[in-house]
Amino acid sequence: MREVAVIGVGMTKWGELWEKSLRTIFVESSLLALDDAGVDKIDSMYVGSMSSGIFVGQEHIASMLADYLGQAPVPSTRVETACASGGLALRLGFMEVASGMSDVVLVGGVEKMTDVNGHEATYALGTAADQEYEGYHGITFPGLYALIARAHMEKYRTTREQLAMVAVKNHRNGAKNPLAQFPFEVTVDAVLNSVMVADPLRILDCSPITDGAAALILCPVEMARKMKKPVVKITGTGHATDTIALNHRKDITWLEATFQAAKQAYAMANKKPEDIDFLEVHDCFTIAEICVIEALGLVEKGKGGKAYEDEITSLEGKIPVNTSGGLKSKGHPVGATGAAQVIEIVKQLRGEAGERQLKNPKVGLAQNMGGSGGSAVVHIFEKE
Amino acid sequence: MREVAVIGVGMTKWGELWEKSLRTIFVESSLLALDDAGVDKIDSMYVGSMSSGIFVGQEHIASMLADYLGQAPVPSTRVETACASGGLALRLGFMEVASGMSDVVLVGGVEKMTDVNGHEATYALGTAADQEYEGYHGITFPGLYALIARAHMEKYRTTREQLAMVAVKNHRNGAKNPLAQFPFEVTVDAVLNSVMVADPLRILDCSPITDGAAALILCPVEMARKMKKPVVKITGTGHATDTIALNHRKDITWLEATFQAAKQAYAMANKKPEDIDFLEVHDCFTIAEICVIEALGLVEKGKGGKAYEDEITSLEGKIPVNTSGGLKSKGHPVGATGAAQVIEIVKQLRGEAGERQLKNPKVGLAQNMGGSGGSAVVHIFEKE
Repeated sequence: MREVAVIGVGMTKWGELWEKSLRTIFVESSLLALDDAGVDKIDSMYVGSMSSGIFVGQEHIASMLADYLGQAPVPSTRVETACASGGLALRLGFMEVASGMSDVVLVGGVEKMTDVNGHEATYALGTAADQEYEGYHGITFPGLYALIARAHMEKYRTTREQLAMVAVKNHRNGAKNPLAQFPFEVTVDAVLNSVMVADPLRILDCSPITDGAAALILCPVEMARKMKKPVVKITGTGHATDTIALNHRKDITWLEATFQAAKQAYAMANKKPEDIDFLEVHDCFTIAEICVIEALGLVEKGKGGKAYEDEITSLEGKIPVNTSGGLKSKGHPVGATGAAQVIEIVKQLRGEAGERQLKNPKVGLAQNMGGSGGSAVVHIFEKE
Repeated sequence: MREVAVIGVGMTKWGELWEKSLRTIFVESSLLALDDAGVDKIDSMYVGSMSSGIFVGQEHIASMLADYLGQAPVPSTRVETACASGGLALRLGFMEVASGMSDVVLVGGVEKMTDVNGHEATYALGTAADQEYEGYHGITFPGLYALIARAHMEKYRTTREQLAMVAVKNHRNGAKNPLAQFPFEVTVDAVLNSVMVADPLRILDCSPITDGAAALILCPVEMARKMKKPVVKITGTGHATDTIALNHRKDITWLEATFQAAKQAYAMANKKPEDIDFLEVHDCFTIAEICVIEALGLVEKGKGGKAYEDEITSLEGKIPVNTSGGLKSKGHPVGATGAAQVIEIVKQLRGEAGERQLKNPKVGLAQNMGGSGGSAVVHIFEKE
């Protein structure tokens, strides 16, 4: 298999983009990525979207987006694994370039979530849980993550304040990201006094409903070396599954799919958790980020909460997590999130992350997951 | 890239399966495919489904199905390109095995369409058209194909009787297929006198609403040679896109995506249209099959209708098309159709097609398309 590089990245500001349609936001991001890469023709594309069918009544978006991007008749594939759809699009694009089937592949994600009302959005997001065993009985995603949070607090003495510190850190980073949906800081007190959603999770523990898209251009490393941008290689990829119903798991505080996907990616990249300089991870709720850093092996099982008191995941910490602001501050257009995580990794590795730039990072990891952790995709990136 | 074989196929009887859920029908077909291949462990899987979100309120099905098949934590990916989702799953599984990333990959498709009422099913299917330019203005899929049919009749003197002959031929084949939803014969008169749906298309010109799944097991050819079944190789794959809105095409009687996908597959397999012994194609409406055989180069542009008077596509004809009964008689669970087409190809090449068995066919082609032709996937198969 050939080595693969990310040679272009593009996204526009995320938020409630009522004046734009799904096709518009995807094409805008894709054109930025093509421009960043300095190419105008692609061989193939992959688009992650969780539920364009329910959110905007449109399936078959892979063809529609290839057409509106002026790239038809190229092969174009939509992939879906709930909120990990963007990461999965990257994995398939990687495979297509690595296999030699194509040279220049666009991968990205998109979700237009604010054209429906809150009740409909909650229903659409609920389709990532097991409808027959969870959704039809009344539970929503904040409810599922609240169960995880409560179990983690009981089992490991994780505190309500530690959960809040995840949001505080991510908003502090997001305040330095001009593309973030909510680029402002919050305090622990503000989180603790915000509206209750599902006990113990409050509104400032939850990532928002967002319209947004993100796109990346991939090509073989040999080709990337002749192009205008520093070469960022994809050196590891992993993808794994678990039960999508929380009650079918042995331990609801443990993200097995993330653990398995990371194991594959670490092995492929020949890296250990301590070799990773920074990460973008799936903080759909504050408790999620805590569970993720445990499953990735960055901290011991049960010690995730403590890491936030010790500030090891802050911009200045030992292992910065979600320098972009994460899903919490940057926004969470579900199908696009996995692709946008990689944009932050690439920007940091290239030294283009502005006010939130880390000091010369070499190795980054992106972790994207679906539902309450029933699917996960992990990638490792290295600056050449 | 490695050579890839299909070593197992599985599907159960299609129809209105009200007593079974989406997960049940997919798992049943998959277990049959695993049994047929003689393997019980897979490395990865791909599932095609067009709109499980709208039809049964469930996204994230790739993980759910891997779990219910007892295969989690293997990577599992859902792909979607409307009614060509099953064919696309095959293409990606092919790529994963060919690239060397995995050895044994399950690919399949599923759609559970009869748990909603007719109005909702029409809406769900309409999401394969361009909602902003077509659906919201009131047109449905029978309406879109009626426009194509009328244009083909005006431009090429295709007759209403020729359209009917497509249905007659496919029902004649389907009557020999015990898994078909509607395994009975119809006459030209019956088609011409059936209920009008969208002039000139009548109910017997339309494929039905169906619950169904289909699954295939892929592995490298070298591994397949050591297994119990005759080796069926995938020698060509093609995938292409076009505008999903019919009015954006230069000529609505011409299926450009099918033409482009076939061109890729023919080139890869080093085959010409005249080298193909038999085909399974996407007859979602009778007019579709006529346009498809033109785009595949089996007959001259505009001569598709005449081919049915000459009976060249019949079971005993020069180039049998849809020996399985096609979408018309076998049924059309949209995401599963592309995988089921391949089951028929494999059964014919192995000599396991029962009453509808062709005499020693060597090369088969499967063509699967989305919407009114906005995406198409073509594969070529050869018996070793």
